[in-house]
Amino acid sequence: MASVRGRRDELEGRPVTQSHITFLPDDRAAAVGASESLLDAAIAAGVPLAGVCGGRAICQRCWVVVTEGEVVAPPEARAASPGEVLACMARAVGDVTVQVPEASRIEGEEILTGLERPGELPAAEDRVALGLPRAAERFVSSPLAFALPLDLPQPTLLDPVSDLGRLERELQRGRNIRNLAVPLDVLRAAPGVLRGADWSVTAVIARSPGGYELLDLRPGTDATRAFGLAVDIGTTTVVVHLVDLGSGATLGAAAALNRQVAYGDDVISRIIRAGEPGGLEQLRQAVVGELNVLVGRLAHTHDVRGDEIVTAMIAGNTTMVHLFLGLAPGEIRRAPYVPVVTLPPVQHAEELGLRIHPRATVTAMPGVASYVGGDIVADVLAAGMDTSGELSMLIDAGTNGETVIGNRDFLICCACSAGPAFEGGGISSGMRAARGAIQRVEVTEDGAFAFATIGGTPPRGICGSGLVDLLAAMLRAGWMDRSARLRADAPLVRTGPSGPEIVVVPAAATAIGRDIIVTNADLENLLRSKAAVYAGAALLARRLGVEMTDLERVYVAGGFGTYLDIGNAIQIGLLPDVPVERITFIGNGSVIGAKMALLSYEALRQAGDVAARMTYRELSADEAFMDEYVSAMFLPHTDCGRFPRACAALGVA
Amino acid sequence: MASVRGRRDELEGRPVTQSHITFLPDDRAAAVGASESLLDAAIAAGVPLAGVCGGRAICQRCWVVVTEGEVVAPPEARAASPGEVLACMARAVGDVTVQVPEASRIEGEEILTGLERPGELPAAEDRVALGLPRAAERFVSSPLAFALPLDLPQPTLLDPVSDLGRLERELQRGRNIRNLAVPLDVLRAAPGVLRGADWSVTAVIARSPGGYELLDLRPGTDATRAFGLAVDIGTTTVVVHLVDLGSGATLGAAAALNRQVAYGDDVISRIIRAGEPGGLEQLRQAVVGELNVLVGRLAHTHDVRGDEIVTAMIAGNTTMVHLFLGLAPGEIRRAPYVPVVTLPPVQHAEELGLRIHPRATVTAMPGVASYVGGDIVADVLAAGMDTSGELSMLIDAGTNGETVIGNRDFLICCACSAGPAFEGGGISSGMRAARGAIQRVEVTEDGAFAFATIGGTPPRGICGSGLVDLLAAMLRAGWMDRSARLRADAPLVRTGPSGPEIVVVPAAATAIGRDIIVTNADLENLLRSKAAVYAGAALLARRLGVEMTDLERVYVAGGFGTYLDIGNAIQIGLLPDVPVERITFIGNGSVIGAKMALLSYEALRQAGDVAARMTYRELSADEAFMDEYVSAMFLPHTDCGRFPRACAALGVA
Repeated sequence: MASVRGRRDELEGRPVTQSHITFLPDDRAAAVGASESLLDAAIAAGVPLAGVCGGRAICQRCWVVVTEGEVVAPPEARAASPGEVLACMARAVGDVTVQVPEASRIEGEEILTGLERPGELPAAEDRVALGLPRAAERFVSSPLAFALPLDLPQPTLLDPVSDLGRLERELQRGRNIRNLAVPLDVLRAAPGVLRGADWSVTAVIARSPGGYELLDLRPGTDATRAFGLAVDIGTTTVVVHLVDLGSGATLGAAAALNRQVAYGDDVISRIIRAGEPGGLEQLRQAVVGELNVLVGRLAHTHDVRGDEIVTAMIAGNTTMVHLFLGLAPGEIRRAPYVPVVTLPPVQHAEELGLRIHPRATVTAMPGVASYVGGDIVADVLAAGMDTSGELSMLIDAGTNGETVIGNRDFLICCACSAGPAFEGGGISSGMRAARGAIQRVEVTEDGAFAFATIGGTPPRGICGSGLVDLLAAMLRAGWMDRSARLRADAPLVRTGPSGPEIVVVPAAATAIGRDIIVTNADLENLLRSKAAVYAGAALLARRLGVEMTDLERVYVAGGFGTYLDIGNAIQIGLLPDVPVERITFIGNGSVIGAKMALLSYEALRQAGDVAARMTYRELSADEAFMDEYVSAMFLPHTDCGRFPRACAALGVA
Repeated sequence: MASVRGRRDELEGRPVTQSHITFLPDDRAAAVGASESLLDAAIAAGVPLAGVCGGRAICQRCWVVVTEGEVVAPPEARAASPGEVLACMARAVGDVTVQVPEASRIEGEEILTGLERPGELPAAEDRVALGLPRAAERFVSSPLAFALPLDLPQPTLLDPVSDLGRLERELQRGRNIRNLAVPLDVLRAAPGVLRGADWSVTAVIARSPGGYELLDLRPGTDATRAFGLAVDIGTTTVVVHLVDLGSGATLGAAAALNRQVAYGDDVISRIIRAGEPGGLEQLRQAVVGELNVLVGRLAHTHDVRGDEIVTAMIAGNTTMVHLFLGLAPGEIRRAPYVPVVTLPPVQHAEELGLRIHPRATVTAMPGVASYVGGDIVADVLAAGMDTSGELSMLIDAGTNGETVIGNRDFLICCACSAGPAFEGGGISSGMRAARGAIQRVEVTEDGAFAFATIGGTPPRGICGSGLVDLLAAMLRAGWMDRSARLRADAPLVRTGPSGPEIVVVPAAATAIGRDIIVTNADLENLLRSKAAVYAGAALLARRLGVEMTDLERVYVAGGFGTYLDIGNAIQIGLLPDVPVERITFIGNGSVIGAKMALLSYEALRQAGDVAARMTYRELSADEAFMDEYVSAMFLPHTDCGRFPRACAALGVA
């Protein structure tokens, strides 16, 4: 029997005990204290319950049904149907069983790891994604940590050099390794290891800006297994690649939703959450916990022991890196937008709670500013923009849209808050690029929609690339005007509760049992997102005196690009109107760049150099931004001179 | 009521509980477990109970009287008189009160700190000892840690550099400080400190071979107090100087017996003890505990907070440094005498248990080999031998006698086991240089001894410098032959239980109520010690093709030298027969050198350079050592050609 009681106040006076919350149909459970919500319990249990607003009863997405036991929740968090409550506002009284409806789940159990082989990827990129990064070409292999077999000469009366001195001498002679920091534990164990192994040992050494660190000393010269992690902490997803530091090969990849999603969809809601009591630590544990799950799974699958993973390279936007390190991100969203750190000093796994070798070094890709993080620097590195003579642009169009323009001589970047529309956020039938997402849409000659879903399953919603297709197709078909408003006379358009809407897939053909639609409000959101991304890029170009059509290369980074139809992206004015062959998808450039730095200290230095010389342009300080933005609130653009081919296709000029 | 029971076995079957042991007349107490001895309890309580052999019932020096309660001890550890047991073999059954007789106490409650002003000190040395080290002349002031006030520019939209980047930029511009390691705690606190203090802060920074480390960030620019410790860990005594890192001034000094003395007098017995279960940790805690007491006392006296002490420089012989760091010293006494480390990597106070700033860097003076440690390198630095053109010799004649010969072009060193005779060990009436020790002896014209004690109090024994005087005086008076055997017809000579002995002070004139005597066996011990020290030095000189009389400078380091009469030391052949003005006492060169390195990173580098270029000569591997040793077993020496003036004074040639 389930019951929902009045207000949380009723709990007062009761002794504080732990409740066990079981989630169905997952059949996963967690124990929580009296002050923790069902949403907290879901996070602890690893159940992907949606919580876009960060647990503040705003987004109304975490509805669950209590099927057994008792909970308290305020009236506004209770629905008409029995047992239905907002998980973020409900607290258990004793043990409780909860049913999580499909609609309240975070989609995306399948997340791109960067190891997929989408057919569209250019061959070179394919190779990169499959773990043979360009570092092998651009940079000498010099991983951030390595296991070095050493046959040390036995000490004699004529060579009585100390244990550590003997080791250091060998490292200096053979590898020019100096300034070796040695943790006390390793030093204390050294005499026993050296003699127990008859002076044949393997030194595990990490490299960092200050020099080297002896992470471990293993008996025997065949104990040379050493692995590293290339990690992309995205606002939405977390991707981990397990890399053999010796060969440079990627053993495998794993990905999951960033558990922080339960506390809010975008960086701003995370930052707000982090400012609440205990919030920062909660967010830190959420992402570290998810990473530990992924790493544990990868290690198990590939028969790697946790303590054989001796270094990790983290790429993420500035907020994600702050949360991972437990740094207060509050100032990131307050002018003048100053983060605690853009180039975090090296730390050790144990201090961060990462369950790999306790002394493993953990480095973060150097970032540029509050809204241009190490993930973008990794993108630049992965694209090779920093050493190319071509005038290039890189666009990472996620919730936070970042743009970089430059070449080997200069790099300039900006960020704009594009909003989550192209990730499916704030769109009636939007969803992330996951199984069941419509990723391709066309308008057929007989005036209907044709579509394809990820995984080929019945559709659950529309992801970013599908939305781009939809916009372009409806524009070309004349079902929508250049201001992205549906024409009342277009087929499939009807008047919904909030105005005109178009039915993309009728309920019967979906996996969710309701129509997949797009409303005028959705189209407005998409238009705003596209305008923001383009305006940022265009303003950057204008400040450089460069025409967008002059760009010799356009790189598109992020999962968004993976399934994107380039022609349609140009058609709606999201990407600049350059010949299609100049546009290159680099996939998850963040994890690729991180892997390059993981495998080459030189690449890490290069990344530092890129971050240092990349000029950040704060667009909110540039009065011309609004002009650019307003001009871009048209499809493809107000100024057809900037989109000659796209306008020609529409028969306008 | 006190009772002593049979064997320890009787304890078996009883529940393990803690006993409280009270020591009188000190009235200090400690709680110990059933497996711990009364000696362990004395150490825990800080009672200076003698335990030369390291708690193995060999030295028979830790007799105590149980006045209340019950103890168990094997028969061989029980004396005839009621309640008298060897503390090292006795274990308490329940609470016990113990009386510590004067004879079982370690002497030396007053230990030279290096801040005394003995009249004999040359002016320059006096200045050094008083905290104005030569570093001020030789080296640019650049302390190993410093507190830097920083007025940072407020962030603006045009200068939105991160908190850490802002700090780093200022440090790079102003001080060329790069490669700044930042512990996670400091990084996490930084945004709050910076904004709370309106961007006026004080950065506490340590310097180490790999670069710099941000130890702390304090609000306000006037929080610039930063202190360091120069520490000399001797086998017998521990000396700590508290130094203002800003001004270079020594605020004060404190010294105490190294509590490890209870586990054995010399490094060999400590090494043996360290090899027993739990022994290493016990020894480590003993010295760290004593340091914490001294530091606590100094900090309190000089109104310094523990967390204002941000770095420490340790000088000690190789074994002492091993025990302090918790490194197994076992190989130091096994051929080929290989220590774990001679140049220990920098560690942090918290890991070592030092109660100063938890992140304070702890550095050790670089050493050369198992028996030539960082203390000797510190001596060389303090003497300035490494930069002088003069052909110099340095002698540190403690239990382990070290000799260095060289100048700015070369440095060569050796060590010999001189034994503790010149520290009063193994001598019937020997004692350390402490209050009541006879430090000066003459034979008067009317055939009696005249003497002076440290502190002017009635004598308790004879310390090293007194023994040197005694030997020289008796030799000149003809009371003793050149083989250091008493002449039966000399005044004050009598036959004691173990052969001829001479009464230096009759019981009535002493503070201990028994005759202060020297026996033939004592003289033999002294002769062996002197011969070992000289033979080491002479062999080193011989291998260099140098005559001892050619030395342009002889430095004498260590407490032993402070009160030494140079003429007498030459007379007995302990110091080479060079003109007296060529001999310089440098006092506690160990703590002085440590302080120089503490106050100048350049001096630390120079110390590293000295350690690296100092050639260690293992004398046990040189077959000529025994020849030199046998030749030196004569006063002043078998070869009067080496001691022309000393032999002339005796009328021999």
